[in-house]
Amino acid sequence: MNREALLQRLIAICGSANVLVDDADTAPYLKERRGRWTGKTMAVVRPGTTAEVSQILKLASETGTPVVPQGGNTGLVGGQIPDSSGRAIVLSTSRLNRIRDLDTAGDTITVEAGVVLQTIRETVDRHDRLFPLSLAAQGTSQIGGNLSSNAGGTGALTYGVARDLCLGLEVVLPTGEILDDLNRLKKDNTGYNLRNLFIGAEGTLGVITAAVLKLFPKPAGVATAVAGTSSPEKAHELFRRARQAAGPTLSAFELMPRIGVEFTTLHIAGARDPLAHPHPWYVLLEISSGRSEADARTLLETVLGDGLQTGTVEDAAIADSGQQRNDFWRLREGMSESQIPEGGSIKHDISVPVDRIPAFMADAEKAVLAITPEARIVAFGHLGDGNLHYNISQPAGAGKQTFLSLADRITPAIHDLARRFGGSISAEHGVGQMKRDELAATKSPVALELMRRIKRALDPVGIMNPGKVILSD
Amino acid sequence: MNREALLQRLIAICGSANVLVDDADTAPYLKERRGRWTGKTMAVVRPGTTAEVSQILKLASETGTPVVPQGGNTGLVGGQIPDSSGRAIVLSTSRLNRIRDLDTAGDTITVEAGVVLQTIRETVDRHDRLFPLSLAAQGTSQIGGNLSSNAGGTGALTYGVARDLCLGLEVVLPTGEILDDLNRLKKDNTGYNLRNLFIGAEGTLGVITAAVLKLFPKPAGVATAVAGTSSPEKAHELFRRARQAAGPTLSAFELMPRIGVEFTTLHIAGARDPLAHPHPWYVLLEISSGRSEADARTLLETVLGDGLQTGTVEDAAIADSGQQRNDFWRLREGMSESQIPEGGSIKHDISVPVDRIPAFMADAEKAVLAITPEARIVAFGHLGDGNLHYNISQPAGAGKQTFLSLADRITPAIHDLARRFGGSISAEHGVGQMKRDELAATKSPVALELMRRIKRALDPVGIMNPGKVILSD
Repeated sequence: MNREALLQRLIAICGSANVLVDDADTAPYLKERRGRWTGKTMAVVRPGTTAEVSQILKLASETGTPVVPQGGNTGLVGGQIPDSSGRAIVLSTSRLNRIRDLDTAGDTITVEAGVVLQTIRETVDRHDRLFPLSLAAQGTSQIGGNLSSNAGGTGALTYGVARDLCLGLEVVLPTGEILDDLNRLKKDNTGYNLRNLFIGAEGTLGVITAAVLKLFPKPAGVATAVAGTSSPEKAHELFRRARQAAGPTLSAFELMPRIGVEFTTLHIAGARDPLAHPHPWYVLLEISSGRSEADARTLLETVLGDGLQTGTVEDAAIADSGQQRNDFWRLREGMSESQIPEGGSIKHDISVPVDRIPAFMADAEKAVLAITPEARIVAFGHLGDGNLHYNISQPAGAGKQTFLSLADRITPAIHDLARRFGGSISAEHGVGQMKRDELAATKSPVALELMRRIKRALDPVGIMNPGKVILSD
Repeated sequence: MNREALLQRLIAICGSANVLVDDADTAPYLKERRGRWTGKTMAVVRPGTTAEVSQILKLASETGTPVVPQGGNTGLVGGQIPDSSGRAIVLSTSRLNRIRDLDTAGDTITVEAGVVLQTIRETVDRHDRLFPLSLAAQGTSQIGGNLSSNAGGTGALTYGVARDLCLGLEVVLPTGEILDDLNRLKKDNTGYNLRNLFIGAEGTLGVITAAVLKLFPKPAGVATAVAGTSSPEKAHELFRRARQAAGPTLSAFELMPRIGVEFTTLHIAGARDPLAHPHPWYVLLEISSGRSEADARTLLETVLGDGLQTGTVEDAAIADSGQQRNDFWRLREGMSESQIPEGGSIKHDISVPVDRIPAFMADAEKAVLAITPEARIVAFGHLGDGNLHYNISQPAGAGKQTFLSLADRITPAIHDLARRFGGSISAEHGVGQMKRDELAATKSPVALELMRRIKRALDPVGIMNPGKVILSD
C-alpha cells in the first residue's frame, strides 16, 4: 500500500484532525525533550478509543508499517522516538485520556493510557486516596508510558514501582486483537501472568490502552526530614536503622551529595540549604503514618535521635510546615536540572543491591576520577531501592564537548562496575534505543534469546516499536 | 528411544539411587495427598544440581518425554501429578535443597527450589529477618512449588503473594538452557520481565531451580486479636477502618464464620472459642510494628475501640501471650481440616474485588441453598485480599457421595458468581488439571491464545507438564 492510501485509511479510522502529517504538527512528537534523539514519521496518529487503536495496529500489521507508541514524550532513553527512515507512524495515546472508573470502595482507579500521572494523583487525592507513583515528569508523563517503561520514582520504597501498582491492563496486540485484562483483583492465579510482559516492554509487544491501578489510603500524616551525614556508609547505616524502626512506613529515603545541594541552591529558585552547616552527604527521609502527623513525627524523631547518638547523623531538620517539606523535596527534585547551568553532564541510571551502594560509590568515584580528575560527581537518588542517578558534571570552566566525548569511556566504566556489583544498567528508565546495543552485548544469551522468542511470538511481523529494547533477529 | 535406554540415560545423569522406578518408591509422588488425583510414571528422577536438571530436560526434549516437576506435593489442583499414561517422568526438586546464600545486609536469601518453606522462614528468623510467605502446608511445601503456583497465604495483605516476594530466578528451560536471572535488585528495567512468566506457570514453561527472595525486618512487635461481628458487611467495614489507621502495618485480616469456629473447636486439639459469647462472624486481625509490641497493641486497641464504638465490632480479645496468639491462629488454620469429620466438602478458592466480598457472599449463599437447603457454608479466608475459601460442608447426617455429586451444580454456580463480580476462580491455588477445562471455557479467547503462543515459543516440543493449565493446541 502506498503512503497516500495508508494515510487515507488512517484518516478513515481516526478522522483527519487526528492524522498529523505537516512538519509543524509532527515536530513535537519527533524530538526527545533534551534534543538527544530525533526521528521522522509518515504520520502521527491520535486514536480516541481502544477500537481505533485496534484498527490502526491491524492496518499496520497488514501493511508492515512500523508503529511507535508515544505517551507524554518524557522518556529518557529514546524509546518513544521513531527512527530516521520516515516509515513509522507515531501512535500518540494523548486522546485516550478518560478516567473510566474511580472505585474508592475497592481502592482502584481505571484509567486510559493517555491520562497524565499528575491528574491521577490529584483525582484520587480529592477522595483521600494515594496513588504513590511519583516522579519529576509527572505533570507531563502519561500512565501508559509510565507502565510501558515500568517507572520507578520516589514512592517505590514503600509502594513499589509501576509494575507493582498495576492490577490489570487492556492491551492492543500487534494483530489488532484486544486483550481485556482489566482485573481489579489482588489475587488471581488463572494462567500465565500476561500483564507483566507488557509492563516494561516499552511498546515493543503491543500498545497499553488502559490500566487498573491500585490505590492506598492517604496517610494521616507524613513527617519529612533532611539529615546531614559524613559518608554513603553512614547514610546506608541510617537506612538500615530507619527501616528496622519504621518498616513499610519508611516511605522515602533519598541520598544527595553536598555538591548537588550546592548546585540546587545556586540554580533552582526557592531552594535553600537545609541545615546550618554543610555536610558531605544528605538524606531526605520520610515516614508516613496512618494515625497522625504527630505519630509520624515522633517516630522520625526517634530514628534521627538514634542516628545522632550513634554518630550516623551529624545534624538533622524535620520539616515544620508543608512549605518546608516542599523545600526539602525541591532540593532533591531539582538536582538533575541544577546540573544544566554547570555545563555538560554524563548521566547514568544504575542499581545495585542496596547494601552495596557504598562500595559501588567508592569504586565508581575512583574510576571516574582516573579518567577525568576534575569531574564533579553528582550521584544522588533512591538509596533505599539501591538505585542511583550516577551523574557526572564537567569540570568547572572546562569545554563541554570535550567532556561529553569522555562518555565513551566513563559510561562503560560505570556500567561495568554496576554489573560487577550484581547491578543493572537501567534501574528505572528502560532500554529504548539508548542502551539496546549494550544490553545485547552484556545480557545473558539465554535471556536475550527468550526475549526474542517472546517478541516473535507476539509480534511476528515486527511492527511494534522496532529497534527498541531488542532487535528481533 | 525405548524405556530401558531412557532410564539408563537418566541413571547416567542422576545416579541409580535417584531414578526411582519401583512402585513402592514412586507411589508417594503419584498421589495427591487427599487422594483426588493419581497418576503413573516411567520414573521419578531426583536431580541434585541445576546442571542435572538441564541434562534431564535436554534429554526429555530430544526424546519427546513429558516432564512433571514436583516440589513438596502439596498442590491442591493436581498440577504436580502426572497423567495415567505412564509416559511422563516426575522431576522431584527435593534434592535441590541448598540455601545458597543468606545476605542479611542486602535482605535477600538465595535458595534452591527444593528448600522447604518453613526452613526458609526459620533460617531467616534466626537472623531477625522475616520471610512473610506463610501457608498451612509450609512444613512440607517447597519454595519452587510455591513460586510455580504463585502461592498466597496469610501474609499477602502487607507483603504480597509469592510473585511479589521474588527478586530473581534460575530456571531450566525445556531445551535444557539455563536462564540465570538470580537478580537481587529491587529495580531493573533491562528488557522483558521473564521472571513473572515462570512464576505461576505451574511448571508448564520450565523448571524453577533457584530463587532470590526478599527479606524484611522482623517486626519488633505483633499484636493479634479476634473480633466478633454481625455480618460480612461489618467485617468489611472494620477492614476499611483498620487499613486506614494502620496502613501497611495491618498485616493480617482473616474472616471466619461461626460454624467454622464451631467445627474447629470441636475437632482440632487445643482450639477454643475466642470470645465469651458466640458471634455470627469473626475476624482475626494483626498489626505489626517496627517499634514495639506495645505500639502494635496500642494501635490495635484504637482500631477495636473505634469498632466497638461504631457498632462494627460486637466484642474483641487481644492476645495476651504467644500462646493465646497461637490459639487464635489455630482456629483459622484448622478450619479447612475441621471440615473433614463433618463429612463431604465442596471447596472453592475464589477472589473478588475486596469491597464486593459482602455482596458476593450474600448471592453465593442464596445460590448454594437453592441447590441444597441444608448445606453448611464454611466461607472463610483472606478478606483483606478479597480471597475466600468458599467451602461447603454437607448437611449434617446426609450421605457424603450424594452431597459431593452436587459439586457439578454448586461449583459452576459459585464460579459464575465470582466471574460476574469481576473475580477469579483460582485466587491462589492455581489451575493444574482441576480447572484447566473451565479456564479454557471461560477465559477470554485472546488471553488463551496469548498463553498458547507463549507456551509454543518456550516449549515447542510440549514436554513441560503437559495437560496442566492449558492445552497447547
